[in-house]
Amino acid sequence: MIELVNQNLEKYMEIKEPEELFKSMRYTVLLPGKRLRPLMCLETCRMLGGNIDDAMPTACAIEMLHAQTLIHDDLPCMDNDDFRRGKPTNHKVFGESTAVLAGDALLTFAPQVIVKYSKNLKPEKLLKILGEYFNYAGAYGVIAGQVVDIASEKNHVQNPEVLDFIHTHKTADLFKLSIRCGAIIANADEKTLESMTDFAEKLGFAFQIADDILDETSTFEQIGKTPGKDKASGKLTYVNLYGLNNAKCKLACLLDECYDKIQGSVVFEQIIEKMRKSCQI
Amino acid sequence: MIELVNQNLEKYMEIKEPEELFKSMRYTVLLPGKRLRPLMCLETCRMLGGNIDDAMPTACAIEMLHAQTLIHDDLPCMDNDDFRRGKPTNHKVFGESTAVLAGDALLTFAPQVIVKYSKNLKPEKLLKILGEYFNYAGAYGVIAGQVVDIASEKNHVQNPEVLDFIHTHKTADLFKLSIRCGAIIANADEKTLESMTDFAEKLGFAFQIADDILDETSTFEQIGKTPGKDKASGKLTYVNLYGLNNAKCKLACLLDECYDKIQGSVVFEQIIEKMRKSCQI
Repeated sequence: MIELVNQNLEKYMEIKEPEELFKSMRYTVLLPGKRLRPLMCLETCRMLGGNIDDAMPTACAIEMLHAQTLIHDDLPCMDNDDFRRGKPTNHKVFGESTAVLAGDALLTFAPQVIVKYSKNLKPEKLLKILGEYFNYAGAYGVIAGQVVDIASEKNHVQNPEVLDFIHTHKTADLFKLSIRCGAIIANADEKTLESMTDFAEKLGFAFQIADDILDETSTFEQIGKTPGKDKASGKLTYVNLYGLNNAKCKLACLLDECYDKIQGSVVFEQIIEKMRKSCQI
Repeated sequence: MIELVNQNLEKYMEIKEPEELFKSMRYTVLLPGKRLRPLMCLETCRMLGGNIDDAMPTACAIEMLHAQTLIHDDLPCMDNDDFRRGKPTNHKVFGESTAVLAGDALLTFAPQVIVKYSKNLKPEKLLKILGEYFNYAGAYGVIAGQVVDIASEKNHVQNPEVLDFIHTHKTADLFKLSIRCGAIIANADEKTLESMTDFAEKLGFAFQIADDILDETSTFEQIGKTPGKDKASGKLTYVNLYGLNNAKCKLACLLDECYDKIQGSVVFEQIIEKMRKSCQI
Protein backbone atom coordinates (compact mmCIF):
# COMPACT_ATOMS: atom_id res chain seq x y z
CA MET A 1 0.00 0.00 0.00
CA ILE A 2 2.98 2.34 0.67
CA GLU A 3 4.06 1.95 -2.94
CA LEU A 4 0.60 2.92 -4.12
CA VAL A 5 0.66 6.02 -1.93
CA ASN A 6 4.08 7.01 -3.30
CA GLN A 7 2.94 6.54 -6.89
CA ASN A 8 -0.08 8.75 -6.34
CA LEU A 9 1.92 11.42 -4.50
CA GLU A 10 4.17 11.56 -7.57
CA LYS A 11 1.18 11.72 -9.88
CA TYR A 12 -0.58 14.52 -7.99
CA MET A 13 2.57 16.67 -7.71
CA GLU A 14 3.47 17.40 -11.29
CA ILE A 15 6.17 20.07 -11.66
CA LYS A 16 4.88 23.37 -13.02
CA GLU A 17 6.26 26.94 -13.06
CA PRO A 18 8.04 28.12 -10.98
CA GLU A 19 10.00 24.87 -10.88
CA GLU A 20 11.92 25.79 -7.74
CA LEU A 21 8.66 26.00 -5.78
CA PHE A 22 7.33 22.66 -6.98
CA LYS A 23 10.70 21.00 -6.45
CA SER A 24 10.77 22.29 -2.89
CA MET A 25 7.21 21.05 -2.24
CA ARG A 26 8.00 17.65 -3.73
CA TYR A 27 11.32 17.34 -1.91
CA THR A 28 9.85 16.98 1.57
CA VAL A 29 6.63 15.23 0.55
CA LEU A 30 8.51 12.55 -1.40
CA LEU A 31 11.29 11.92 1.14
CA PRO A 32 11.17 8.22 2.02
CA GLY A 33 8.82 7.86 4.97
CA LYS A 34 6.49 5.41 6.64
CA ARG A 35 3.43 7.11 5.07
CA LEU A 36 1.67 6.39 8.35
CA ARG A 37 -1.12 8.95 7.98
CA PRO A 38 -2.17 7.97 4.44
CA LEU A 39 -2.00 4.30 5.42
CA MET A 40 -4.28 4.94 8.40
CA CYS A 41 -6.73 6.79 6.20
CA LEU A 42 -6.81 4.07 3.54
CA GLU A 43 -6.93 1.21 6.06
CA THR A 44 -9.79 2.79 8.01
CA CYS A 45 -11.72 3.22 4.77
CA ARG A 46 -11.04 -0.41 3.78
CA MET A 47 -11.90 -1.81 7.24
CA LEU A 48 -15.25 -0.04 7.20
CA GLY A 49 -16.20 -1.33 3.78
CA GLY A 50 -15.17 1.64 1.65
CA ASN A 51 -13.20 1.67 -1.58
CA ILE A 52 -9.59 2.74 -1.01
CA ASP A 53 -9.42 4.38 -4.44
CA ASP A 54 -11.99 6.89 -3.20
CA ALA A 55 -9.77 7.69 -0.21
CA MET A 56 -6.45 7.94 -2.09
CA PRO A 57 -6.54 11.69 -2.89
CA THR A 58 -7.45 12.52 0.71
CA ALA A 59 -4.82 10.11 2.08
CA CYS A 60 -2.13 11.73 -0.07
CA ALA A 61 -3.36 15.24 0.77
CA ILE A 62 -2.87 14.45 4.47
CA GLU A 63 0.72 13.34 3.75
CA MET A 64 1.26 16.68 1.98
CA LEU A 65 -0.13 18.51 4.99
CA HIS A 66 2.14 16.47 7.26
CA ALA A 67 5.13 17.42 5.09
CA GLN A 68 4.04 21.07 5.37
CA THR A 69 4.17 20.89 9.16
CA LEU A 70 7.65 19.32 8.97
CA ILE A 71 8.98 22.02 6.62
CA HIS A 72 7.79 24.87 8.84
CA ASP A 73 8.63 23.12 12.14
CA ASP A 74 12.23 22.68 10.96
CA LEU A 75 12.71 26.39 10.11
CA PRO A 76 15.42 28.34 11.96
CA CYS A 77 12.76 30.41 13.78
CA MET A 78 11.04 27.20 14.98
CA ASP A 79 12.93 24.03 15.92
CA ASN A 80 15.90 24.90 13.68
CA ASP A 81 16.57 21.35 12.50
CA ASP A 82 19.14 20.47 9.85
CA PHE A 83 18.00 16.92 9.12
CA ARG A 84 14.69 15.21 8.53
CA ARG A 85 14.14 11.63 7.43
CA GLY A 86 17.92 11.34 7.12
CA LYS A 87 18.21 14.19 4.60
CA PRO A 88 18.91 17.94 4.89
CA THR A 89 15.77 19.85 5.81
CA ASN A 90 13.90 21.82 3.17
CA HIS A 91 15.34 25.24 4.05
CA LYS A 92 18.87 23.78 4.03
CA VAL A 93 18.36 22.74 0.41
CA PHE A 94 16.10 25.47 -1.00
CA GLY A 95 16.71 28.39 1.36
CA GLU A 96 14.46 29.78 4.03
CA SER A 97 12.13 31.89 1.88
CA THR A 98 11.37 29.07 -0.56
CA ALA A 99 10.80 26.68 2.35
CA VAL A 100 8.27 29.06 3.92
CA LEU A 101 6.49 29.44 0.57
CA ALA A 102 6.57 25.72 -0.24
CA GLY A 103 4.89 25.07 3.11
CA ASP A 104 2.32 27.76 2.39
CA ALA A 105 1.67 26.28 -1.04
CA LEU A 106 1.13 22.78 0.35
CA LEU A 107 -1.60 24.05 2.69
CA THR A 108 -3.86 24.88 -0.27
CA PHE A 109 -2.39 22.35 -2.71
CA ALA A 110 -3.46 19.45 -0.47
CA PRO A 111 -7.20 20.25 -0.39
CA GLN A 112 -7.00 21.10 -4.09
CA VAL A 113 -5.84 17.53 -4.72
CA ILE A 114 -8.82 16.24 -2.74
CA VAL A 115 -11.29 18.25 -4.82
CA LYS A 116 -9.57 17.56 -8.14
CA TYR A 117 -9.09 13.81 -7.88
CA SER A 118 -11.95 12.55 -5.69
CA LYS A 119 -14.17 11.91 -8.69
CA ASN A 120 -16.48 9.49 -6.89
CA LEU A 121 -17.25 11.68 -3.90
CA LYS A 122 -20.45 13.74 -4.01
CA PRO A 123 -20.20 17.51 -3.28
CA GLU A 124 -21.69 17.13 0.21
CA LYS A 125 -19.13 14.53 1.16
CA LEU A 126 -16.27 16.50 -0.38
CA LEU A 127 -17.29 19.50 1.73
CA LYS A 128 -17.37 17.28 4.82
CA ILE A 129 -13.83 16.07 4.11
CA LEU A 130 -12.64 19.63 3.47
CA GLY A 131 -14.28 20.69 6.74
CA GLU A 132 -12.25 18.03 8.56
CA TYR A 133 -9.10 19.21 6.79
CA PHE A 134 -9.63 22.89 7.65
CA ASN A 135 -10.41 22.01 11.25
CA TYR A 136 -7.45 19.76 12.01
CA ALA A 137 -4.87 21.49 9.76
CA GLY A 138 -5.43 24.98 11.07
CA ALA A 139 -5.77 27.26 14.07
CA TYR A 140 -8.02 24.76 15.89
CA GLY A 141 -5.70 21.85 15.15
CA VAL A 142 -2.06 21.20 14.35
CA ILE A 143 -1.09 24.88 14.43
CA ALA A 144 -2.57 25.40 17.90
CA GLY A 145 -0.32 22.56 19.07
CA GLN A 146 2.78 24.01 17.44
CA VAL A 147 2.19 27.51 18.87
CA VAL A 148 1.87 26.15 22.42
CA ASP A 149 4.83 23.81 21.91
CA ILE A 150 7.11 26.69 20.94
CA ALA A 151 5.80 28.96 23.70
CA SER A 152 6.28 26.24 26.33
CA GLU A 153 9.87 25.69 25.19
CA LYS A 154 10.62 29.40 25.31
CA ASN A 155 9.10 29.82 28.76
CA HIS A 156 10.40 26.50 30.17
CA VAL A 157 6.86 25.36 30.99
CA GLN A 158 6.64 21.93 32.65
CA ASN A 159 2.92 21.40 33.01
CA PRO A 160 1.02 18.14 32.29
CA GLU A 161 -2.06 19.94 30.95
CA VAL A 162 0.01 21.95 28.51
CA LEU A 163 1.76 18.76 27.43
CA ASP A 164 -1.63 17.13 26.78
CA PHE A 165 -2.72 20.12 24.73
CA ILE A 166 0.43 19.93 22.62
CA HIS A 167 0.18 16.16 22.06
CA THR A 168 -3.53 16.37 21.26
CA HIS A 169 -3.14 19.03 18.63
CA LYS A 170 0.37 18.70 17.29
CA THR A 171 0.25 14.95 16.79
CA ALA A 172 -3.10 13.33 17.52
CA ASP A 173 -5.04 15.80 15.36
CA LEU A 174 -3.41 14.53 12.15
CA PHE A 175 -4.12 10.96 13.25
CA LYS A 176 -7.75 11.94 13.83
CA LEU A 177 -7.93 13.68 10.48
CA SER A 178 -6.55 10.61 8.68
CA ILE A 179 -8.79 8.11 10.41
CA ARG A 180 -11.95 10.25 10.42
CA CYS A 181 -11.62 10.97 6.70
CA GLY A 182 -11.17 7.27 5.96
CA ALA A 183 -14.30 6.54 8.00
CA ILE A 184 -16.35 9.33 6.40
CA ILE A 185 -15.42 8.19 2.90
CA ALA A 186 -16.54 4.68 3.87
CA ASN A 187 -19.89 6.10 5.01
CA ALA A 188 -19.34 5.20 8.67
CA ASP A 189 -22.22 5.99 11.02
CA GLU A 190 -21.82 8.57 13.82
CA LYS A 191 -21.09 5.94 16.49
CA THR A 192 -18.35 4.28 14.47
CA LEU A 193 -16.88 7.67 13.66
CA GLU A 194 -16.73 8.55 17.36
CA SER A 195 -15.16 5.24 18.28
CA MET A 196 -12.55 5.58 15.53
CA THR A 197 -11.82 9.15 16.64
CA ASP A 198 -11.18 7.89 20.15
CA PHE A 199 -8.85 5.21 18.76
CA ALA A 200 -7.05 7.85 16.65
CA GLU A 201 -6.54 10.07 19.68
CA LYS A 202 -4.99 7.22 21.69
CA LEU A 203 -2.79 6.08 18.82
CA GLY A 204 -1.67 9.68 18.24
CA PHE A 205 -0.73 10.09 21.90
CA ALA A 206 1.10 6.77 21.81
CA PHE A 207 2.98 7.86 18.69
CA GLN A 208 4.09 11.14 20.29
CA ILE A 209 5.25 9.40 23.46
CA ALA A 210 7.17 6.91 21.31
CA ASP A 211 8.70 9.86 19.45
CA ASP A 212 9.75 11.42 22.78
CA ILE A 213 11.28 8.10 23.87
CA LEU A 214 13.14 7.64 20.59
CA ASP A 215 14.61 11.13 20.83
CA GLU A 216 16.29 9.98 24.02
CA THR A 217 17.21 6.41 23.14
CA SER A 218 17.99 6.37 19.41
CA THR A 219 20.76 7.18 17.01
CA PHE A 220 20.58 9.50 13.99
CA GLU A 221 20.51 6.45 11.71
CA GLN A 222 17.43 5.06 13.47
CA ILE A 223 15.28 8.20 13.41
CA GLY A 224 16.77 10.22 10.52
CA LYS A 225 16.99 13.41 12.57
CA THR A 226 19.29 14.73 15.27
CA PRO A 227 18.52 12.82 18.52
CA GLY A 228 18.85 14.16 22.06
CA LYS A 229 17.66 17.66 21.18
CA ASP A 230 14.61 17.51 23.46
CA LYS A 231 16.66 16.51 26.48
CA ALA A 232 19.35 19.09 25.81
CA SER A 233 16.80 21.88 25.49
CA GLY A 234 14.73 20.73 28.47
CA LYS A 235 11.71 20.68 26.15
CA LEU A 236 8.30 19.75 27.55
CA THR A 237 8.04 16.08 26.55
CA TYR A 238 6.54 13.00 28.15
CA VAL A 239 10.03 11.68 28.91
CA ASN A 240 11.31 14.92 30.43
CA LEU A 241 8.17 15.38 32.54
CA TYR A 242 7.61 11.83 33.79
CA GLY A 243 10.91 10.02 33.15
CA LEU A 244 11.79 7.32 30.63
CA ASN A 245 10.30 4.38 32.51
CA ASN A 246 6.96 6.04 33.15
CA ALA A 247 6.82 7.08 29.52
CA LYS A 248 7.36 3.46 28.47
CA CYS A 249 4.62 2.30 30.86
CA LYS A 250 2.16 4.85 29.54
CA LEU A 251 3.03 3.91 25.98
CA ALA A 252 2.53 0.19 26.69
CA CYS A 253 -0.92 0.88 28.23
CA LEU A 254 -2.05 3.06 25.33
CA LEU A 255 -0.87 0.52 22.76
CA ASP A 256 -2.76 -2.26 24.58
CA GLU A 257 -5.93 -0.17 24.46
CA CYS A 258 -5.37 0.57 20.79
CA TYR A 259 -4.71 -3.08 20.02
CA ASP A 260 -7.98 -4.16 21.64
CA LYS A 261 -9.91 -1.73 19.49
CA ILE A 262 -8.38 -2.71 16.20
CA GLN A 263 -7.80 -6.46 16.23
CA GLY A 264 -8.07 -7.94 12.79
CA SER A 265 -6.50 -5.03 10.95
CA VAL A 266 -3.06 -6.19 9.90
CA VAL A 267 -2.02 -2.64 9.01
CA PHE A 268 -2.90 -1.16 12.40
CA GLU A 269 -1.46 -4.19 14.22
CA GLN A 270 1.81 -3.65 12.40
CA ILE A 271 1.85 0.06 13.29
CA ILE A 272 1.35 -0.84 16.96
CA GLU A 273 3.96 -3.61 16.83
CA LYS A 274 6.55 -1.31 15.29
CA MET A 275 6.05 1.25 18.05
CA ARG A 276 6.45 -1.47 20.68
CA LYS A 277 9.60 -2.81 19.08
CA SER A 278 11.31 0.53 18.46
CA CYS A 279 10.73 1.58 22.07
CA GLN A 280 11.61 -1.88 23.41
CA ILE A 281 8.41 -2.56 25.28
CA MET B 1 -19.42 48.91 2.81
CA ILE B 2 -15.93 49.02 4.42
CA GLU B 3 -17.53 49.20 7.85
CA LEU B 4 -19.64 46.14 7.07
CA VAL B 5 -16.53 44.22 6.00
CA ASN B 6 -14.73 45.21 9.21
CA GLN B 7 -17.67 44.15 11.36
CA ASN B 8 -17.79 40.76 9.69
CA LEU B 9 -14.03 40.25 9.90
CA GLU B 10 -14.36 40.85 13.65
CA LYS B 11 -17.28 38.43 13.88
CA TYR B 12 -15.58 35.63 11.97
CA MET B 13 -12.33 35.89 13.95
CA GLU B 14 -13.37 35.10 17.49
CA ILE B 15 -10.42 34.56 19.85
CA LYS B 16 -9.96 30.93 20.91
CA GLU B 17 -7.08 28.99 22.45
CA PRO B 18 -4.19 29.57 22.04
CA GLU B 19 -4.93 33.29 22.38
CA GLU B 20 -1.51 34.36 21.12
CA LEU B 21 -2.18 32.68 17.77
CA PHE B 22 -5.61 34.22 17.28
CA LYS B 23 -4.35 37.63 18.39
CA SER B 24 -1.55 37.43 15.84
CA MET B 25 -3.98 36.39 13.07
CA ARG B 26 -6.38 39.20 13.99
CA TYR B 27 -3.62 41.79 14.32
CA THR B 28 -2.76 41.93 10.63
CA VAL B 29 -6.23 41.16 9.28
CA LEU B 30 -7.82 43.95 11.33
CA LEU B 31 -5.17 46.63 10.71
CA PRO B 32 -6.94 49.61 9.15
CA GLY B 33 -6.86 49.10 5.39
CA LYS B 34 -8.74 49.96 2.24
CA ARG B 35 -10.37 46.49 2.14
CA LEU B 36 -9.99 46.71 -1.61
CA ARG B 37 -10.29 43.00 -2.32
CA PRO B 38 -13.46 42.38 -0.28
CA LEU B 39 -15.02 45.53 -1.75
CA MET B 40 -14.28 44.31 -5.28
CA CYS B 41 -15.83 40.95 -4.49
CA LEU B 42 -18.98 42.46 -2.97
CA GLU B 43 -19.33 45.13 -5.67
CA THR B 44 -18.96 42.61 -8.49
CA CYS B 45 -21.62 40.45 -6.89
CA ARG B 46 -23.95 43.46 -6.48
CA MET B 47 -23.34 44.76 -10.02
CA LEU B 48 -24.25 41.40 -11.50
CA GLY B 49 -27.48 41.12 -9.55
CA GLY B 50 -26.30 38.97 -6.63
CA ASN B 51 -26.95 39.43 -2.93
CA ILE B 52 -23.91 40.88 -1.16
CA ASP B 53 -24.76 38.99 2.04
CA ASP B 54 -24.06 35.77 0.14
CA ALA B 55 -20.61 37.09 -0.85
CA MET B 56 -19.61 38.49 2.56
CA PRO B 57 -17.88 35.35 3.95
CA THR B 58 -15.90 34.92 0.73
CA ALA B 59 -15.04 38.64 0.59
CA CYS B 60 -13.74 38.53 4.16
CA ALA B 61 -11.89 35.26 3.53
CA ILE B 62 -10.00 36.94 0.68
CA GLU B 63 -9.00 39.79 3.02
CA MET B 64 -7.68 37.14 5.44
CA LEU B 65 -5.72 35.53 2.63
CA HIS B 66 -4.36 38.93 1.66
CA ALA B 67 -3.26 39.52 5.27
CA GLN B 68 -1.57 36.10 5.19
CA THR B 69 0.51 37.11 2.20
CA LEU B 70 1.48 40.36 3.96
CA ILE B 71 2.55 38.56 7.15
CA HIS B 72 4.79 36.10 5.31
CA ASP B 73 6.09 38.65 2.76
CA ASP B 74 7.24 40.89 5.61
CA LEU B 75 9.25 38.13 7.34
CA PRO B 76 13.00 38.61 7.78
CA CYS B 77 13.71 35.81 5.29
CA MET B 78 11.49 37.52 2.68
CA ASP B 79 11.24 41.31 2.30
CA ASN B 80 12.23 41.94 5.93
CA ASP B 81 9.84 44.83 6.51
CA ASP B 82 9.31 46.48 9.88
CA PHE B 83 6.15 48.41 9.09
CA ARG B 84 2.90 47.64 7.33
CA ARG B 85 -0.16 49.87 7.16
CA GLY B 86 1.67 52.27 9.46
CA LYS B 87 2.13 49.70 12.25
CA PRO B 88 4.91 47.30 13.20
CA THR B 89 4.75 44.12 11.11
CA ASN B 90 3.37 40.92 12.62
CA HIS B 91 6.71 39.31 13.43
CA LYS B 92 7.88 42.55 15.10
CA VAL B 93 4.94 42.28 17.52
CA PHE B 94 4.48 38.52 17.97
CA GLY B 95 7.88 37.11 17.03
CA GLU B 96 8.88 35.26 13.93
CA SER B 97 7.61 31.79 14.80
CA THR B 98 4.13 33.00 15.73
CA ALA B 99 4.00 35.14 12.57
CA VAL B 100 4.82 32.11 10.41
CA LEU B 101 2.15 30.06 12.18
CA ALA B 102 -0.47 32.82 12.09
CA GLY B 103 0.05 33.02 8.33
CA ASP B 104 -0.25 29.25 8.05
CA ALA B 105 -3.42 29.30 10.11
CA LEU B 106 -5.04 31.98 7.97
CA LEU B 107 -4.55 29.86 4.84
CA THR B 108 -7.01 27.26 6.13
CA PHE B 109 -9.04 29.58 8.36
CA ALA B 110 -10.13 31.67 5.37
CA PRO B 111 -11.76 28.84 3.38
CA GLN B 112 -13.21 27.51 6.64
CA VAL B 113 -15.02 30.84 7.05
CA ILE B 114 -16.40 30.49 3.51
CA VAL B 115 -17.80 27.03 4.23
CA LYS B 116 -19.06 27.89 7.71
CA TYR B 117 -20.87 31.15 6.98
CA SER B 118 -22.06 30.86 3.36
CA LYS B 119 -25.40 29.40 4.38
CA ASN B 120 -27.17 30.29 1.14
CA LEU B 121 -24.65 28.77 -1.23
CA LYS B 122 -25.32 25.24 -2.50
CA PRO B 123 -22.54 22.63 -2.14
CA GLU B 124 -21.68 22.76 -5.86
CA LYS B 125 -21.21 26.51 -5.74
CA LEU B 126 -19.24 26.35 -2.50
CA LEU B 127 -16.88 23.86 -4.13
CA LYS B 128 -16.50 26.18 -7.11
CA ILE B 129 -15.59 29.09 -4.82
CA LEU B 130 -13.13 26.89 -2.90
CA GLY B 131 -11.63 25.78 -6.21
CA GLU B 132 -11.01 29.44 -7.10
CA TYR B 133 -9.48 30.02 -3.66
CA PHE B 134 -7.11 27.03 -3.89
CA ASN B 135 -6.09 28.00 -7.39
CA TYR B 136 -5.29 31.68 -6.81
CA ALA B 137 -4.02 31.41 -3.21
CA GLY B 138 -1.53 28.64 -3.83
CA ALA B 139 1.29 27.30 -5.94
CA TYR B 140 -0.46 28.27 -9.19
CA GLY B 141 -1.29 31.76 -7.92
CA VAL B 142 0.00 34.26 -5.38
CA ILE B 143 2.79 32.00 -4.14
CA ALA B 144 4.18 31.45 -7.64
CA GLY B 145 4.45 35.24 -7.92
CA GLN B 146 6.20 35.62 -4.59
CA VAL B 147 8.73 32.85 -5.33
CA VAL B 148 9.72 34.44 -8.64
CA ASP B 149 9.75 37.92 -7.07
CA ILE B 150 12.25 36.84 -4.43
CA ALA B 151 14.39 34.87 -6.89
CA SER B 152 14.50 37.83 -9.30
CA GLU B 153 15.64 40.15 -6.51
CA LYS B 154 18.33 37.73 -5.41
CA ASN B 155 19.63 37.22 -8.93
CA HIS B 156 19.19 40.87 -10.05
CA VAL B 157 16.92 39.82 -12.92
CA GLN B 158 15.68 42.71 -15.10
CA ASN B 159 13.42 40.96 -17.58
CA PRO B 160 9.98 42.20 -18.74
CA GLU B 161 8.52 38.70 -19.00
CA VAL B 162 9.56 37.87 -15.47
CA LEU B 163 8.06 41.16 -14.28
CA ASP B 164 4.77 40.28 -16.00
CA PHE B 165 4.77 36.86 -14.34
CA ILE B 166 5.30 38.46 -10.92
CA HIS B 167 2.60 41.11 -11.40
CA THR B 168 0.14 38.57 -12.78
CA HIS B 169 0.48 36.20 -9.90
CA LYS B 170 1.56 38.26 -6.93
CA THR B 171 -1.02 40.99 -7.39
CA ALA B 172 -3.52 40.41 -10.19
CA ASP B 173 -4.37 36.89 -9.00
CA LEU B 174 -5.98 38.17 -5.78
CA PHE B 175 -7.91 40.75 -7.81
CA LYS B 176 -9.08 37.96 -10.10
CA LEU B 177 -10.03 35.79 -7.15
CA SER B 178 -12.07 38.61 -5.59
CA ILE B 179 -13.89 39.58 -8.75
CA ARG B 180 -14.42 36.05 -10.06
CA CYS B 181 -15.88 34.89 -6.75
CA GLY B 182 -18.24 37.87 -6.68
CA ALA B 183 -19.35 37.01 -10.21
CA ILE B 184 -19.77 33.30 -9.49
CA ILE B 185 -21.86 34.00 -6.40
CA ALA B 186 -24.07 36.26 -8.55
CA ASN B 187 -24.52 33.38 -11.05
CA ALA B 188 -22.70 35.19 -13.87
CA ASP B 189 -22.58 33.36 -17.19
CA GLU B 190 -19.28 32.18 -18.68
CA LYS B 191 -18.90 35.21 -20.96
CA THR B 192 -19.43 37.72 -18.16
CA LEU B 193 -17.02 35.78 -15.96
CA GLU B 194 -14.36 35.96 -18.66
CA SER B 195 -14.90 39.66 -19.24
CA MET B 196 -14.71 40.39 -15.49
CA THR B 197 -11.55 38.28 -15.23
CA ASP B 198 -9.96 40.38 -17.95
CA PHE B 199 -10.99 43.56 -16.09
CA ALA B 200 -9.55 42.14 -12.85
CA GLU B 201 -6.25 41.35 -14.54
CA LYS B 202 -5.93 44.89 -15.89
CA LEU B 203 -6.92 46.49 -12.59
CA GLY B 204 -4.46 44.25 -10.75
CA PHE B 205 -1.63 45.26 -13.07
CA ALA B 206 -2.59 48.91 -12.68
CA PHE B 207 -2.60 48.52 -8.89
CA GLN B 208 0.89 46.97 -8.88
CA ILE B 209 2.30 49.67 -11.15
CA ALA B 210 0.73 52.31 -8.87
CA ASP B 211 2.35 50.53 -5.91
CA ASP B 212 5.73 50.64 -7.67
CA ILE B 213 5.25 54.36 -8.39
CA LEU B 214 4.21 55.13 -4.81
CA ASP B 215 7.27 53.33 -3.47
CA GLU B 216 9.35 55.90 -5.32
CA THR B 217 7.26 59.04 -4.86
CA SER B 218 5.62 58.74 -1.44
CA THR B 219 6.38 59.25 2.22
CA PHE B 220 5.96 56.72 5.02
CA GLU B 221 2.82 58.54 6.16
CA GLN B 222 1.22 58.17 2.75
CA ILE B 223 1.79 54.45 2.24
CA GLY B 224 2.22 53.16 5.82
CA LYS B 225 5.39 51.25 4.98
CA THR B 226 9.03 52.14 4.37
CA PRO B 227 9.25 53.84 0.93
CA GLY B 228 12.21 53.74 -1.46
CA LYS B 229 13.11 50.15 -0.68
CA ASP B 230 12.53 48.92 -4.23
CA LYS B 231 14.83 51.54 -5.72
CA ALA B 232 17.52 51.01 -3.11
CA SER B 233 17.53 47.25 -3.70
CA GLY B 234 17.32 47.57 -7.50
CA LYS B 235 14.26 45.32 -7.34
CA LEU B 236 12.50 44.30 -10.55
CA THR B 237 9.60 46.79 -10.66
CA TYR B 238 7.80 48.63 -13.41
CA VAL B 239 9.45 51.90 -12.37
CA ASN B 240 12.97 50.45 -12.20
CA LEU B 241 12.60 48.67 -15.55
CA TYR B 242 10.86 51.36 -17.63
CA GLY B 243 11.34 54.60 -15.67
CA LEU B 244 8.84 56.67 -13.72
CA ASN B 245 7.28 58.46 -16.69
CA ASN B 246 6.69 55.32 -18.71
CA ALA B 247 5.21 53.68 -15.63
CA LYS B 248 2.78 56.57 -15.26
CA CYS B 249 1.82 56.35 -18.95
CA LYS B 250 1.19 52.63 -18.71
CA LEU B 251 -0.86 53.13 -15.57
CA ALA B 252 -2.95 55.85 -17.20
CA CYS B 253 -3.67 53.60 -20.19
CA LEU B 254 -4.65 50.64 -18.05
CA LEU B 255 -6.90 52.77 -15.87
CA ASP B 256 -8.63 54.19 -18.95
CA GLU B 257 -9.30 50.67 -20.20
CA CYS B 258 -10.59 49.65 -16.78
CA TYR B 259 -12.79 52.72 -16.57
CA ASP B 260 -14.42 51.95 -19.92
CA LYS B 261 -15.28 48.48 -18.75
CA ILE B 262 -16.84 49.44 -15.47
CA GLN B 263 -18.70 52.72 -15.95
CA GLY B 264 -21.65 53.00 -13.66
CA SER B 265 -20.06 51.25 -10.70
CA VAL B 266 -19.34 53.98 -8.17
CA VAL B 267 -17.13 51.66 -6.13
CA PHE B 268 -14.86 50.70 -9.03
CA GLU B 269 -14.82 54.28 -10.34
CA GLN B 270 -13.61 55.43 -6.93
CA ILE B 271 -10.89 52.77 -6.83
CA ILE B 272 -9.68 53.93 -10.25
CA GLU B 273 -9.87 57.62 -9.29
CA LYS B 274 -7.86 57.03 -6.12
CA MET B 275 -5.09 55.33 -8.07
CA ARG B 276 -5.02 58.23 -10.55
CA LYS B 277 -4.88 60.80 -7.79
CA SER B 278 -2.26 59.12 -5.62
CA CYS B 279 0.04 58.72 -8.64
CA GLN B 280 -0.76 62.19 -9.95
CA ILE B 281 -1.97 61.20 -13.40
